[in-house]
Parts: sequence; structure tokens; C-alpha cells
Amino acid sequence: MSDTTTTDTLDQLCVNTIRTLSMDAVQKANSGHPGLPMGAADIAYVLWTRFLKHSPANPSWPNRDRFVLSGGHGSMLVYSLLHLTGYDLSLEDLMNFRQWDSRTPGHPEHGLTPGVETTTGPLGQGLANGVGMAIAERFLAETFNRPDYPIVDNYTYAIVTDGDLMEGISHEAASLAGHLGLGKLIYLYDDNHISIDGPTELTYTEDRCARFEAYGWHVQQVDGHHREAIARAIRSAQAETNHPSLIACRTHIAYGSPNKQDTAASHGAPLGEEEIRLTKQNLGWPSDAQFYIPDEVLAHFRQAVSRGEELEKEWGALFDRYSAEYPDLAVTWKQVWSGELPSGWEEALPSYAPDDGSVATRSVSGQVLNAIGSTLPTLLGGSADLSPSNNTELKEYPWLQTGEFGGRNIHFGVREHAMGSIMNGLALYGAVIPYGGTFLVFSDYMRPAIRLAALMELPVIYVFTHDSVALGEDGPTHQPIEHLPSLRAMPNLVVLRPGDATETVEAWRVALERHEGPVALLLTRQKLPVLDRSVLPPAEGVRRGAYVLADSEGTPDVILLASGSELEVTLAARQQLAEQGVKARVVSMPSWELFEQQPPEYRDEVLPPEVSARLAVEMAAPAGWERYVGLQGDVVGINRFGASAPYEVLLEQFGFTAENVALRALAVVDRTRR
Amino acid sequence: MSDTTTTDTLDQLCVNTIRTLSMDAVQKANSGHPGLPMGAADIAYVLWTRFLKHSPANPSWPNRDRFVLSGGHGSMLVYSLLHLTGYDLSLEDLMNFRQWDSRTPGHPEHGLTPGVETTTGPLGQGLANGVGMAIAERFLAETFNRPDYPIVDNYTYAIVTDGDLMEGISHEAASLAGHLGLGKLIYLYDDNHISIDGPTELTYTEDRCARFEAYGWHVQQVDGHHREAIARAIRSAQAETNHPSLIACRTHIAYGSPNKQDTAASHGAPLGEEEIRLTKQNLGWPSDAQFYIPDEVLAHFRQAVSRGEELEKEWGALFDRYSAEYPDLAVTWKQVWSGELPSGWEEALPSYAPDDGSVATRSVSGQVLNAIGSTLPTLLGGSADLSPSNNTELKEYPWLQTGEFGGRNIHFGVREHAMGSIMNGLALYGAVIPYGGTFLVFSDYMRPAIRLAALMELPVIYVFTHDSVALGEDGPTHQPIEHLPSLRAMPNLVVLRPGDATETVEAWRVALERHEGPVALLLTRQKLPVLDRSVLPPAEGVRRGAYVLADSEGTPDVILLASGSELEVTLAARQQLAEQGVKARVVSMPSWELFEQQPPEYRDEVLPPEVSARLAVEMAAPAGWERYVGLQGDVVGINRFGASAPYEVLLEQFGFTAENVALRALAVVDRTRR
Repeated sequence: MSDTTTTDTLDQLCVNTIRTLSMDAVQKANSGHPGLPMGAADIAYVLWTRFLKHSPANPSWPNRDRFVLSGGHGSMLVYSLLHLTGYDLSLEDLMNFRQWDSRTPGHPEHGLTPGVETTTGPLGQGLANGVGMAIAERFLAETFNRPDYPIVDNYTYAIVTDGDLMEGISHEAASLAGHLGLGKLIYLYDDNHISIDGPTELTYTEDRCARFEAYGWHVQQVDGHHREAIARAIRSAQAETNHPSLIACRTHIAYGSPNKQDTAASHGAPLGEEEIRLTKQNLGWPSDAQFYIPDEVLAHFRQAVSRGEELEKEWGALFDRYSAEYPDLAVTWKQVWSGELPSGWEEALPSYAPDDGSVATRSVSGQVLNAIGSTLPTLLGGSADLSPSNNTELKEYPWLQTGEFGGRNIHFGVREHAMGSIMNGLALYGAVIPYGGTFLVFSDYMRPAIRLAALMELPVIYVFTHDSVALGEDGPTHQPIEHLPSLRAMPNLVVLRPGDATETVEAWRVALERHEGPVALLLTRQKLPVLDRSVLPPAEGVRRGAYVLADSEGTPDVILLASGSELEVTLAARQQLAEQGVKARVVSMPSWELFEQQPPEYRDEVLPPEVSARLAVEMAAPAGWERYVGLQGDVVGINRFGASAPYEVLLEQFGFTAENVALRALAVVDRTRR
Repeated sequence: MSDTTTTDTLDQLCVNTIRTLSMDAVQKANSGHPGLPMGAADIAYVLWTRFLKHSPANPSWPNRDRFVLSGGHGSMLVYSLLHLTGYDLSLEDLMNFRQWDSRTPGHPEHGLTPGVETTTGPLGQGLANGVGMAIAERFLAETFNRPDYPIVDNYTYAIVTDGDLMEGISHEAASLAGHLGLGKLIYLYDDNHISIDGPTELTYTEDRCARFEAYGWHVQQVDGHHREAIARAIRSAQAETNHPSLIACRTHIAYGSPNKQDTAASHGAPLGEEEIRLTKQNLGWPSDAQFYIPDEVLAHFRQAVSRGEELEKEWGALFDRYSAEYPDLAVTWKQVWSGELPSGWEEALPSYAPDDGSVATRSVSGQVLNAIGSTLPTLLGGSADLSPSNNTELKEYPWLQTGEFGGRNIHFGVREHAMGSIMNGLALYGAVIPYGGTFLVFSDYMRPAIRLAALMELPVIYVFTHDSVALGEDGPTHQPIEHLPSLRAMPNLVVLRPGDATETVEAWRVALERHEGPVALLLTRQKLPVLDRSVLPPAEGVRRGAYVLADSEGTPDVILLASGSELEVTLAARQQLAEQGVKARVVSMPSWELFEQQPPEYRDEVLPPEVSARLAVEMAAPAGWERYVGLQGDVVGINRFGASAPYEVLLEQFGFTAENVALRALAVVDRTRR
């Protein structure tokens, strides 16, 4: 056992309550991770009872401190704390740990459990989410605070683990946090020396503290079971306002377990009934009691409720005075926190006509952003070091930097993964509308973060440019092929690939209006003609996912479906087919997900079941188009990796010419007539 | 201009040749990245002419030093060097930079250009590949070298950039390299202070040197245009045998360009004809000459050819003596370098019968590995800190560590991305058969590396366990949904999801026999019954991607397709349907990719076109199954994220019961009869 110098019996009882609740719940579920909650109980206890500014009765109070358990496998730690401090999470919920429909799933899920600030489990994500939360806090403080009115003023805390620090995303996020000097970010590192394979020394011997110092962090080391030392370190971290803080807390996994403490065996499996009994004996606990919470422990923890109400009251009074002095700001504050867009926000959106000349959809995206930037004061984004290519800069606004936290543009650096996860953190904080750009092919680097945005239903917007082999000379390493179907396969992610300037404006509108999950905008590098909407139907069809863009009299002989830049070649193919007496309908299909949400009547209207001659045209892996073209249909897609060459050559070589599309359409017509 | 103290005119001419070739090629292509080659020309020149042990006439000489240009956008640097030192890459090839079908694509592609050791461009990958190459070198040295016979003895060098170091994968790979003490890994950091968004100080201010020291690297800083200093640093790095080395070389991007040096403008666009003229003047170059190589420069560089032949000859003589003294080892050496498996390798493969009881396919995978471990002496792998869950350990062999580089098991740590990229490096080095495991859901963390394995056609094997929601209580953060279709969408990746123990053995056989690209094995956490092959057809059908597992007399009323663990429920549903007089065929379909490679006759035999009543059953996003079930068919899949609960509950809730599958099959039969 580590030497714990405190003599505070109540504190010890409280900490052991966290430990015993955690091991009991894991044992009852016969599944889970008791080691982390038992080892990190002291640090969590100190943080939650002496520092964390929160209001259990109102988990969405804007000015609360944020707490992230980055090692989400230790979920029983946070569930125990939430129950004990009086959140809407009952002891029965704890007993239902890891059961169907419970509010205590295996890993903490934001939106499911009150007080869980983010969904964690995939390692490194919580660590990077916290950086996003801390950026949001600084940005909103700079935007809204006024002298004597610190209406935004909170810390972001996290408990991070060896696994988090080993993941690459921790490097990206910590490097950026250090660069920005996020002084109100305080991370407690549960330094327990144990990973699943065994002691961390088997593979992880870097000097973590020196590494974080190299990032510009303020670093301290303490005994993670010495509560006074932990408290002192947190106070020092708070005092250090120009650098984020890492407090390396040397802990013992499964603290208190006579046979499993300090072993990998306690990481991810129940301790077993006998070992639990021995552990309880060792901790001076009634050895047969289960889910036992001493009255004085509950009373002590539950002080958080009244303290929280008091904090909220004070803040409410402050906000009232602020509203009186700065009524416009208060209106804006309420507006941005409502999650709704201000009325009339879309008036500034640009419109396009064929005479404007060809324009890349990535350029249109940049123009949209710059048009709406002033209307949406908390639209905040950037790019992973591809700003000039992704067109993500709000040109009238400064870059967000130390000393200029009100800047509207973030230099994420070549850190796609952290960008994705920081965007999640911005959205989780609230009030901010985050967007971030990179090349579509590098969406792979941030997939785990995209997945969590989709799972958490966060309204973040991805600006993925260079969306096909038509990016040209950079070649196959930079040309997306499988990315379109891969993103489409993800639940609750809306993928939008607009086909001209007007559709791009509409796509942005959809993206901004979506509140229940992320949207990926797939945009071209190359220029595209602006379609003539005086002849063709309006681009509003984008919001239905697919719409008839060009048609023929009567039932079409063939339906041509296309997305994005392939609209152009498909319309040209339709023309060629018409000249050969074949009636082709062109369906613009920027989003499968939105189309699937339409009523069957609309879907049948766009894709009449009686027309089985169907050809999809898209510069991507064709996987999944069979859903729309059927076994009789065909897809002009790309079943290999790309190649380095000027894009006109690539279009020719890969068959994205009007001639080839028309030829393939004729073949489909033939086949279905047979 | 930085002060270059050397007075060696020939050296300067050589370096400027690299610079001018690079800017000329980029200008001619009107696309590309001149800045890096111009800035890093000095460091590359010193490395390639004074240190790199290579044989341009034989780029596959096993004992050559490996050179990786991790910042692949600077491809003209390596193309210039390859041409100048006499590889099979002509000046005409250089003039065809970035053109269709050329051997000088936008980013270096392994397999396309002789001497390119790995495909780079996606940042951080080359840096991590190099770590894999260095591990392979140590592993093979330990395995094959004998006193006085250092037949494996080479350095791995790389030029790494700011972008590489910002990426998270650089942390993972560098941390592991430092842990392992890879003393023969020497990285030259092109520290040019410029990224695409502008000066690196905009977002990247960490102390890189201190960071690498924290990883346990030997770190030096030099003027990147001071060639003697660079040479001294490389010698010091070589002298440091217990730690990998980082040499931070302060360079100036686009060195020599009067108006674009030290600017982001020179990073990714041609300098422009006028600026090229000015640069050539500034460098003392004939200002109108293009692709000009002074004779004495070529002669100097081309010494590499004879030097290389000499090196090879010496090594060949050494190997001959080695063969005489250690004939068995020499036979094994030739065998492992042949890329073929030793004859009879499969004799040790286990077999399974129903009486053996239920067994998880991940367990079978572990048993296969342990059965063949001794037969395949260079099978080398591990897991990203999930060894006990992925069953990836070769239990009879030690772990690979400093001082025990012959170990057969690698603790990759919680570093999925680096694992994937290190596996690529192991495969690129040659002779090694790499495998690596994690949970399927965390394949997302390593997707960029998987993609490069597929693009480079590397035979690496992924052991992705916990392949569905049936992993149970860990919940949606750990349950793959979209991963199956996402991996299937990737060109040249074979995805195999075996459905019982016997299919798993067969899947491993396919994986080991595939030489032209990676294989992902998707394996269950939960136990599955061993199918009775005395009644059902043999599992050899796995190698055809799909086969008829159970059939009825005559034409089936409905075809049920399933993969992996869903075979069990599908077979049970077939039984229920039979009881209702409905004839169902069950097709086991572990691999779409292998099935697509079969002749049409076989495919039609398995899936007769006349049977349109088809139902696919798979615990994953259904995307893409329409290819096999058509518009009339249906898919029992999962169109949402998973949930935390015991797996039996999840199967019930998500509809993976015999009853539900039978019901859905009946609905399809009804629909197609109408």
C-alpha cells in the first residue's frame, strides 16, 4: 500500500465508497474495469469535492467546470461520483451497470447519463475533447466577458491514463494546448504503471513529464493517494494561468485489493467475489455489504447539490446584471446557447449563376463561410494546415492565439485527429458551431473522432475538399477512393457531395441546420460549371438527398444517378443519349442519408421502381450504389487506387467522359430490355 | 542565405543540381513541391554520398541501408538522387514528373520507382515505416547473424518534416523506437520552420528536441546547410548504438530562391519561371538551362554504382562463407527472403470437430498462430496492448525487447496507428511476415496505415477481434458497425470473416498465402459452435470467398447469405424455414473480395440469378449487401450504433435470432413471389 498520510476518516470512507461501489457494480455485471476507479478514487475525490464547480441539479449550467474521464473504461468512477454527488443517477442505475437500456453503459455516454460531459472509451479522445472544451471556454470568455463580468470562467479537468498518453492523438492535442497556453486546462494523469499487456515498462518508458514540458505544459508529480498533495498540486495548476497543467499522480491500480493491486488482472475483469471480500476487509469495510454507502458519506458528497445551487444562483445574479449592462450581448448569448440559428441568418448566403464562370465547390464553401461569418458569431473553425486549400479561413477575423482567444480561425496544424476531437470538445462545451477542414483522403486520420461525433449526435461540420481523383497530380496517396462509401456506412453521419456552386450553398444550409449529428461536406478541388437553375430545378432538392435534375418526356429509358462533380459529365451523357433517342433522367444525389429519410413516395418518384435501367456515376469505390441501381444496373466508379496525372487525363483514363457514361448507360438499357 | 562554410565547389554543384532538377521538374509539371528538395538538398546529399550503403544496380540487395523520405511531397528530392546515383530512373522519367503512367508520380510510390523504399505523402507514415524497418533489421540480425557474420547490418535513415512530427503517429512510433533503443535508426529532421498555413510558429511551438529526448532518443541540432556539421552529426548518431537518433537540421525551405526562400509559397507550388531564373542566377547556375546536370556532378554521384557493386560483392562473399559454415541458416535465409512459405508449412495447422465444443474464432486464431510459429521463423507480430484479448502471442517465444531482438512478440502498446505503419515497415524490409491485432472498432485508428499497405500491396495480416456488437457490455464505443463495409470498400484489402473454427484455420491459410496485399481477419469475441464438416461441405470454400454451406433439394426458395458468427443463426433459421416447407440455401460468405475474383460461373452457381429471394445476415451496417441481395432482397443488419449489454440480450434486441431471420426470409419470399 502506498503511504497515505491523511488521517481524515470521513475522506477515507468517501474514497473507499467509490472503490467498493465500483468493484461491486463490476462484479454484479460480471464485466467491467474495477482497477481504474479503485486506483484513481483519491484523485477524483479531491477534485470533485474540493475543486469541481458544478451543479448536480443542473448538469447543463453553462459556467460549470468540465470534467472528462478520458479512460472511459473506468466508467464506474464517474457513475459513482455522479450518484454520490446527487446527479439524477440512482443506486439502482449503478446496479444496472452494463445492462440493456441502463444509464450506466460500459463506457460513459454523453447524452445518456446526466453529468457525463463526453463519450469516452476509445483512448485519447477524452484528452483531446478537453482541449476543445478549454478552447471554447477561452473563446467564449473573450467574446462575451466584460470587465467585472466573467460570465464564462471555468476549468476543464480530466483524468487521463497511460493508454490516453500512448495514443498519437494525445501528442497532437497536447502540443496544440501547449502552443495556445490553455491555462485553465488541468489534467490529472492516473500514472498506475499498468496496461492490459502488463506493466507499462514493457513498452512505454518515455519520460512523460519531460514530454509534456516539451509541449509547454506545467508539470507536477505527486503521490496519487496523498490527498493533500493532490489538492496542493491542483491549486498550483490553477495558479499557473499561462500553461496547461499535467499532474502526474502515481497511483496503484485496484488500490486496496490484496492480491490484484498493481496487476493487469484488475484492469478489465471483475475482481471475483472472494477477492472483493478480502479487499473490503482490507479497506475496513463491511465485507459482505454490497453497494453500501455510509450515511455520513452520502451526506458529505451531497453537499455538492446545495453548493451547486448556490454557485448557479451567484452566476445567475451576475448574468442578470450583465444583461442589464450589455443587453445586446445577453441576447446574443442566449441565442448562441439555444442551439438555433438566428433568424435571417441565411440572408447573407451567396448565389451563383452560370455567367459567374466555373468555380470549385471548395471555393464556394469558402465564400459561404465568409458570407455568414458575421451573422454567426460563434462559428469557429479552421483546417489541419490546409487553410489555403480547404478555403476554411474567415478572412475578416483574426486567428485564435494566446492573447487573442476571440480569434475565429484555428490553426489546427497537421493534426487531423486532434482537430476532429477538438471539434467534438467545442460542440460539447456548447454555444460554438465548429467546423474543420482537411483533404477527404485524410478523413482517415480522424475517423475515430468522426465516429464519436456521430455517436454523440454532435453538430460539427467537416469540410473535406479534394474529394476525388480529380485532385490530379498529387496521386493515389492523396486521392480518396473508398472514403465516400466508408463515411456513408457510418450511422448518423450525413455525407453531402454537392455538384455545383448552388448545391454547395444549399449543402452548407443543411449542415448548419442539422443539430442531431455531424455533416461531412465533400468538395472539389477542380472548377465546375454553375448549373443553370433558370432551366434546371432549384437546388433545394439537396435537402431531400436526391432530386430529379433533368428529365425527359414520359418514363425514362434509363436513370443516371450522380453526385458532386460527376453531375457535369452525366448531364452531358444525357444529351448524347437524347441524340440517340434514349430518354435519360439525371438524378442529382448529393446525400444518401438524407434521401433515405424521405417518405417512400418521394423516393419512388425520384427513382420509379419500374425503371430498372439505372447507372450511377461517381468517382469513388462503387460499393453501396447497388442499393439504388440494383442487380440489373451498373456503376461507373473506380475499383482501384488512383494515379498521379493532370486531372483531365485521369477523367479520361478512369472513364468519366460523356461518351463512356453514355456507352455504359446504353449497355444497361440493353441488358434490362433483354 | 545561411552561411555555408564548405568551400568544396563540386559538393556545391552537386547540391545545386538536386535543387535545380527539383524546381525544373515541378515547373514543367506545373504542379508539385519545390521547397523541400531545395531546402533539404544539403542533408540528403551528405547522407547519400557519404553514408548511405546502397547498390543502385540492385535496389533489392537485402543488406542495403534503408532511406525513407517521410515528407513524400518532396518527391523530387528522391527522384533526383535516384537518377543521379544511377538507379534505373532516367532524366526523361524526371521530365515526366506527375504525368500519367510515369515512374515519377506526385508522391513516391514503392513498387513503381526503383529505389523508393516506401510510399509516402500521408504525413507521419514514413517516419513510422522506418521504425518497422529498423525493428526488422534488429530481428533478422538477431535471428541470422553469427559471430563474425554480420549478414544483417544496415542503418535506417529518414528525412522527416514538421508535418511528420506534428502527426500523432510520430509520437507513437518515436516512443516505441525509443523504448526499444533502436540505435541504427537515424532521422534527419528538415527543420525549416514552414508549413502550408505559414510559419510553424503559428501552431507548432513545442520543443521538438526535448520531446524526442523524452522518448529516449539521442538528439543533435545542426545547421542544415553546413555539410561538415551534418556529416559529423551522422557519425555521432552512428556511434550512439543504444538509442535512435534525431538530427534536427535547421534548413531554409526553397534554399536559394531570392523571393520565396523561407516562405510557405514555395511549399506546394512551382516557383514560376521568373523566380527559377533568379534562383539559378543566385546559385551560380546557367539561368536558362533546364534539367541541367554538369558532367562532373553526374560522374561524382555515379560512383555510387561501382561502390554499390563492391559492397554487394563483399557481402556476397561473406554470405558464401556463412552458407558454408551455417548451411541450415543459409537455407532458411533464402527461404524467408523468397516470399514463399516453406513446403509443408500447413501441416501443423490445427483442425476442429463439433465435439471439441464451442470456441471463439479469436481463440482459434491464437491456436493457429502458435501451431505455425515454429514453422515460420519470421512470423513476427503482436497487438496494440490487447494481447490477451486478440490472442496474438506466440507463447513459446520471448517478447522482442532491447537485448532480445530475436523475440517473436512485439508489445506495440496502445499505438494502433504506429502498429499498422510499423507492420508496413516490417513487410517493406522483407523476409518478415508481420501481423498485428486490435479490436475491429479500433481499425479506425490505423486506417491510413491499412490504406498504404493496400496501396503498396504489402502482405501484412490484421487480427481484428471483437468483430461485432456481440462483444457485449463494452458498448457502442467498442462495437464495430460501419467497419466491415468500410474495410470492404478499400481496394486491394481482403477482408475475411470466418464463421467457425474450421473456417478460421482456412482464413489464416488464405492470409498467409496472399502475397499481393493485406488481409484483415475479423474474429469473434464470443464462442461459436464448430460446424460439422462430416455433414456440411469443407471449409475450403473460404478461399473462394463464398460457398454453399447448406442446401435443399432443387432450386431454393430463398438464399440466406451470412458471414462470421451469423452462420449459426442463419443455419438455425434455415431449419425453421424447412419446417415450414420453405427451401433455403445458406451461403457462407466470409470474403466479398475473394468471391468477386471467382469466375462468373462459380458466382452464379453459388447465387443462381433466377433466385431473387435473398436475405443477408450480418451484424454490421448493411451497406453494400445489396450487391448480392438486389433490390428485391433484404438485409438483417444494424443501422445504428450498438449498445452496452450482455451479448445474448443484444442478439435478441438487434434481431439476430433464428426466429427473426426466418421471419425476414419469409417476407422476402413473399415479396419476390408477388
